[in-house]
Parts: sequence; structure tokens; C-alpha cells
Amino acid sequence: MDYSYEQTISDLVQANHILSHEGVLDAFGHVSARDPENRDHFLLSRSRSPLFVEAEDIISHDFDGNPLAGPEIRPYAERILHAQIYQARPDVMAICHNHALPLLPFTTSAIELKPICHSGCLFYEGVPVYDDYDVSDGMLIINKREGERIARAIGSKRALLLRGHGAVVVGSNLKEVVMGSIYLALNAHIQYQAIQLGQPKYLSYEEGRAATEKMLSDLVLDRAWEYWQRRTALKHSPK
Amino acid sequence: MDYSYEQTISDLVQANHILSHEGVLDAFGHVSARDPENRDHFLLSRSRSPLFVEAEDIISHDFDGNPLAGPEIRPYAERILHAQIYQARPDVMAICHNHALPLLPFTTSAIELKPICHSGCLFYEGVPVYDDYDVSDGMLIINKREGERIARAIGSKRALLLRGHGAVVVGSNLKEVVMGSIYLALNAHIQYQAIQLGQPKYLSYEEGRAATEKMLSDLVLDRAWEYWQRRTALKHSPK
Amino acid sequence: MDYSYEQTISDLVQANHILSHEGVLDAFGHVSARDPENRDHFLLSRSRSPLFVEAEDIISHDFDGNPLAGPEIRPYAERILHAQIYQARPDVMAICHNHALPLLPFTTSAIELKPICHSGCLFYEGVPVYDDYDVSDGMLIINKREGERIARAIGSKRALLLRGHGAVVVGSNLKEVVMGSIYLALNAHIQYQAIQLGQPKYLSYEEGRAATEKMLSDLVLDRAWEYWQRRTALKHSPK
Amino acid sequence: MDYSYEQTISDLVQANHILSHEGVLDAFGHVSARDPENRDHFLLSRSRSPLFVEAEDIISHDFDGNPLAGPEIRPYAERILHAQIYQARPDVMAICHNHALPLLPFTTSAIELKPICHSGCLFYEGVPVYDDYDVSDGMLIINKREGERIARAIGSKRALLLRGHGAVVVGSNLKEVVMGSIYLALNAHIQYQAIQLGQPKYLSYEEGRAATEKMLSDLVLDRAWEYWQRRTALKHSPK
Repeated sequence: MDYSYEQTISDLVQANHILSHEGVLDAFGHVSARDPENRDHFLLSRSRSPLFVEAEDIISHDFDGNPLAGPEIRPYAERILHAQIYQARPDVMAICHNHALPLLPFTTSAIELKPICHSGCLFYEGVPVYDDYDVSDGMLIINKREGERIARAIGSKRALLLRGHGAVVVGSNLKEVVMGSIYLALNAHIQYQAIQLGQPKYLSYEEGRAATEKMLSDLVLDRAWEYWQRRTALKHSPK
Repeated sequence: MDYSYEQTISDLVQANHILSHEGVLDAFGHVSARDPENRDHFLLSRSRSPLFVEAEDIISHDFDGNPLAGPEIRPYAERILHAQIYQARPDVMAICHNHALPLLPFTTSAIELKPICHSGCLFYEGVPVYDDYDVSDGMLIINKREGERIARAIGSKRALLLRGHGAVVVGSNLKEVVMGSIYLALNAHIQYQAIQLGQPKYLSYEEGRAATEKMLSDLVLDRAWEYWQRRTALKHSPK
Repeated sequence: MDYSYEQTISDLVQANHILSHEGVLDAFGHVSARDPENRDHFLLSRSRSPLFVEAEDIISHDFDGNPLAGPEIRPYAERILHAQIYQARPDVMAICHNHALPLLPFTTSAIELKPICHSGCLFYEGVPVYDDYDVSDGMLIINKREGERIARAIGSKRALLLRGHGAVVVGSNLKEVVMGSIYLALNAHIQYQAIQLGQPKYLSYEEGRAATEKMLSDLVLDRAWEYWQRRTALKHSPK
Repeated sequence: MDYSYEQTISDLVQANHILSHEGVLDAFGHVSARDPENRDHFLLSRSRSPLFVEAEDIISHDFDGNPLAGPEIRPYAERILHAQIYQARPDVMAICHNHALPLLPFTTSAIELKPICHSGCLFYEGVPVYDDYDVSDGMLIINKREGERIARAIGSKRALLLRGHGAVVVGSNLKEVVMGSIYLALNAHIQYQAIQLGQPKYLSYEEGRAATEKMLSDLVLDRAWEYWQRRTALKHSPK
């Protein structure tokens, strides 16, 4: 699937609103897309809560994290995280960094987050945990070296947890990243309860792989996207 | 109670909306009814999120799962699950397949889901767990043999859990299936907490049986249906 | 405080709506008030979900549970529970029977529900658990002898849990019963989590007693009632 | 940052609404600000639920807790808590006393509430627990000596838990106190789950300190404030 620049901007605005209304993003967190017309740039809002992001807020950034806009634009502090992953992973076309609540306990624990239900299948290759902060930066990913470490930590995986902070979810298009972000949190919610019940049975690697194939079909992605989009429209009436 | 075709379509649209607003169905999952005018057919929406299903989306399917409509209609992937159960269970007039969150931990655990509160009484004969997947199908029920195994696994029971995936709830009419689907999830929510508190006392078989008799009276079913219907109307204003 | 018949009807309609919107009542459960003009009668809606109860639904009942209205009125099945408590407890002016979710785990457990936070203070004299059902009645309180046992079980207390079913909350006026019903569930929610954390410190008897005195002052009751009333008005726009 | 009297009143009304809509305040609890034009006075609503507080409800109080308004004004019962802290802590410009649900289990437990996730960083110096009540006052902070003990118990910290009752959060301006109140509850929610998962890794003192520096920058405070303000506006349409 090829997306035009206009389609990407429009989807990115939608992704900001959907992820806010589904409880993945709140005052903080952000979602970006690689620029379809210049693979060395990525598109990300200026610094504002995703719930309010509109097309005119989105600006192109280069791989040093510099916003390609006038100096009066204030960018997100953690944009280097996006920059370093786009640079390291040519397959990645979209990224979400979020602090969804069900994920947070897993970021602080030795218990591995892994697929326990069908919706969590996308993460069958594992979700590493990053815990290698420059302490002086207050657990934020704001310098280039920390960004490089993040990119190394996610490796070829689809998601990374950041200890005591949140998660990064990547994918080959925006719909996949929106689904992955919502379903990573959902899987964490279920896994937490399953662990309390005791001795849960997880998806096997092969179950996860096969389920992922179905999940990323256009049919499934489009149905889920339409669902989240319409739920968002029901809630998101501007005043 | 006999239902006309028109009444069944209308109730089925309502059931789709109610189960969405009560958190039983989301982007996925589906609810069907046996065709009252042709017991070898069943009525099910084309592939779309239940929140948006309208009368014109509902099409008849045969017991091979074939939609009896033009080829441009895209049916649900898991329709064979409905087909095989209607074929095996002449008493079943309606079916819901869902992924309600409170159920999921129980699908992954050796702990049996059973009635812990009055609302869960319908399931006093037990809720078996299916864990016999064709792994290559990604835990979806999309081939006839898997559909047959599902029908065998539910046997004469009112519900079946699918490991790491969700549940199937059946009944002798749509209102019963809507109630069963909502209350199976509610019972799971309560049972989870009761287990954390420790040594819960479950309903006895006879308590469950007697309570079910009351629960399935027209008075109770109609009161609950009216309640869910009006709550849905409050939330479901189309834009 | 003396209430007129008109004020009682108006407060009772409000109580139905408030308790529905605060998640204490759902399709089922009911709230009643003693008739201020005839202490041997009590006021209770005909059989419908509390969310929809209006003044014209409310009818007087005698202590045998008979509705004093035409035969076309269908009363609640469990009205005998109210009748028997009003008869046994001259101090009781209002009663709520509900199935609030946070209470249910405690109804099935040997762990006693008791005040863990200020809001739960009203229950410092303890909350007994009823588990003496006529099994054939499906755990419903629908015969006079079971009603008598319920009245004996609550004794002089402010609340009673019914195993696997719900609770009864009584008080000396409707506002007190609305507060008690909301705060019994809230206390259960907090107590559940406090037990998971481990070795919670409960309110002492004397703390509970002193806090109850403050809680039942007109100032506090009126502030809480106004709050719930206005929240309800925000949500309860009829279509 | 200096705030005018008018700005402080306007922010204080907003703070009341935001904290209500974010679930920190309900029928009870209150938020105050030091009077920017008279540091020996503080601004607090008369006794009403924070959801409904408007500019005309806010009155100045002195350090004995006396409202500087006509005798027909009914003040909050627990205003002495604010008075004593403002007197003891010249650095404190705003205070919130609340009963947010996720905090309550921690007020009853020997387990210390401490930063487990980035949002909770503000509390890296620890959150003491007050349990030194005048029992006859029903766990309310309504006499001067109890107010003094509260002020001593919070010491130089940013928050204090009150056993079985709630919390006090202080800060150097209203936005900081709103953020602290929301994030203290959020941290408690996450910490509770992390403890259930087992052996959580907390923020180090230095991580907490460094993260706090970022968190209290104008950029971050303003972004969060705008977010909560707009969410409140979406929900808070007066009738």
C-alpha cells in the first residue's frame, strides 16, 4: 500500500485522536509517520496533546530530530526517539510512544509481557524492556545517544517497554501502529489478570505468527480502523 | 414465543448495538439468529463492527457458512462457527461469539468459570474450554472441521470458552443470548475478584437451576432487554 | 425532618435515578420509602428498571407486600423483602436492595465487609451475611418466610449482604439510604484492594461511630445529595 | 511566575472542575490557593461540591480558618487543614485535600506509596502517612491542634496520606497541585498493580529528582493544564 503525503497527514491526525480516545495517549505521548515523499524525514505534531492535534500542527523532522519549520515552532522533547528508530529501521513507517496505564506495571517488573490472547498476537517475537537511562535526563529520551540505545533495544521487534515510563510501538503503516498500541495495552490488561488467576497459558510462537498474518490483512486492519474512527467521531465533537 | 422474520431482523440489529454498548462486542465478534422461516439458514451481518450493523447488512447464510447474497458481500471470517452450531443444536435459535475482556483470563487458566452470583446462574451446567486449534489458522474458527470441533465442544451447554480468544454463548432466543453474553462476562468479573479474596462459595447446581428458571421468564428477560435497549439509545445517537 | 407524601415521591424518583447513574442499581434492584402518611405502607415502583422510574410508577404496598393498586400493575418480585423489614424495624424509613458489583465478591467470601475508609463509616456496627435461601426460589426473596429471615438477619444493623446475590441497605430517610448504598459499594472496592496490598488497618468502632455522626448531619447529606442529583441531571437527558 | 488575584480566582475555579472531572474530587474534597495579594490569607470555596464551584463561591480565609465574609456563608468543615499548612509552609501557594480512590488502599497499609512511574516522580522525597486522629472528630481535620499535627506530618514534603481518609497535596502554584493530585492517584493505581505482579522496580531518588525538574517546567505544566482544561470543557456543559 502506498500512501500520499495528504493521506498520511490525514491518517496521522486521525491516529492522534483515536489513540487519545482509546486511552493510549493522554496529555503526553505522540505518534509519527515516515514522510512518504522523503524517507529521511518523518511527520510529527508540534508539542501539544494528541487529542487536539490538527493537520496544521504536523511538521516534518529530519533524523537529527530537527523540525523543518520556523523557529517559533516548539517540537516534542522526545522526538529523537522517533528519529533514531526511523534511521535504524527502514521497514518502520510509523511509531507511537505512549504511557498506556495497563503497560506500566509490566515496565517495572521482571515478568515478561507476552501474547496471552488473540488481540496480543502481534507481539509474538517478544517485547524487550529498556532500562539504560541517562539518569540526569529524568527518564526522558531527549539526547541522541539515548535515542540510539532505544533503537538498539527495540532491535527488529515490534515494541519496546521503557522501565517506569511507557512503550514504543512500531509498524509498517499507521493503522498497524494504532492497532498495535491499543492491543499491546489490552494484552497487558488481560495478562495481569491471568497471572493473578494463576498459571496462564500463553500463545505459542507459531500461534502468534499465524494470528499476526490474519490480523495484518487489509480486511481486519480496515475494520478495526473504521471502528475506532467512528467511536472517536462519536466522542470528539469540538466545541 | 414465535418471532417473525421482521421481528428477528429488528431484534438482531438491536442485539448488535446493545452488545457493543455493554462492552461485550467491539471491533470484532458477532451475533446471529436462526432464520425463523427457514431453520436451515441463519441471519448474520456482513463483515462489519457490530456497533454499526443495520438491517440492510444482515444476510442469510446456509449451514456451509455460505452467505446467500451477491458475491460483492464480504461475510465474517468465522461464520462457520455459527453454521456448525446451528446444525448440531436444533434447540439453539441465537448465537453470540465475543471477546469480552473479563472472560479472557478464564480462557487461559485451569480455573473453571462457574456461577458465583445470581446473574451468572445461567451457566450452572458448566462452561467448557476449547483448546484444539488448527494452529495455522491463527486461532480463528474458519474451517469446517474446526467448526465441527467447536460444536462438539459446546455439546449441550449454554457457553464455551475458546482458549486465548473469547467465548460462544447460545440460547433459545436473542434476548436470552444477549443476557447470557452480558452476564457471563459479569460473572467472570466477580469470580475473578472473589478468587482474589479467597475461598469463594459458588452457586450449587440446584441454586443455579432454580435461578435460571426465574431468569428466563418473559418478565425478567423483557425488563433486562428494555433496560439495555434504552441505555443503548441514550448512547447511540448517529451523526 | 418530616417529609410530605409529595416530597417523598419526588425524592424516591430521584433516588432511583441517582442509584442507577452511580452504578448501584442496573436493570434490577429497587429502592423504597415508608409512606409518611401511613406508616404501615411503603412506596415502591411497579416492576421496571430504576433508571426509568417516574412518579406515576410508584405505588403503595402493605406489609404483606400487596400493591394497593389495580390488578393490571405488575409489582417487583422481591417486594416482600421491603415489607418484612419495614414491619420489623419501625426506625427504618427507606430501603435499597441492590447488586452493586464491588459488593458481590464479599457476599461469597468468609472475609467480613467492614469500614476501611471514612466513606464506609456508616457500617461500623458490622454487615452480616445472609445465606439461608429457600433453594427452590432461585436465590430470590419472594416468600414471606424468607422475608422474615432477611428481617431477622439484618437485625438492628444498617446493611445486610445476601450470599451470591447482593445487599440490603436501610436508613432513617432516603438520602441516608442513597448515601449508604453508594458508600457500601465504595468501601467494598477499597477494602478489596487494601486486602490485596496486605494487612489493612480498619476503622475502630469508635472512629466509625464518631464519623457516622458527622456523615449523617444535614449539611453533609445535603451536599452529597445535591452532588449526585446534579451528576444525574448531566447524564439523564431523556430522549 | 506571579499571578494576579483575578488569575488566581479563575485558575482556582478551573482547578475545582478539572479535579472533579479527573476523578480526584467528588462530592467532597477541596482545593485552595494562597491569596497573591495577602500572603496571610488563602482562597477557598464555601462549602459545596467542587464540580459546581464558581468564582462567586470563593472567599478569603485567615490562618485561623475564619472565612472573611458575611456570617451567612457556610465554610468547609476542614478549612483548618489548609490554614495550618499555609502558615507553616511559606513555600506553599496551593493545596488540594482529596479522597481519590486509588490512594485509599495505601492510606490503610504499611506499604509505602512511592514513585513507580515517571508521572509519579514528584513524590520522590516520600509520602508520609498521618494516623494521629482525635477520634471523637470522626477522622475529620476540624480542630486547630489536629491541623497543626497535619502541618507537622507533611513537613517539607509534597504530599501526605491520611489513614483511611485521603490525601493532602501541596505545591508552589495551582497547576503543580492539580498535576500532583492527578499523578499521585495515577501512581498509586500503577503501584498497586505492580505490587500484584511482584517485585516492582521503583524510581531511584535521583531519577525522581531529575524527572521532577522536567515535569515542573512551564512547558510541561502548561501542556498538561491545557489538556485537562479542554477535557473538562468537553464534559462540563452546564444545563
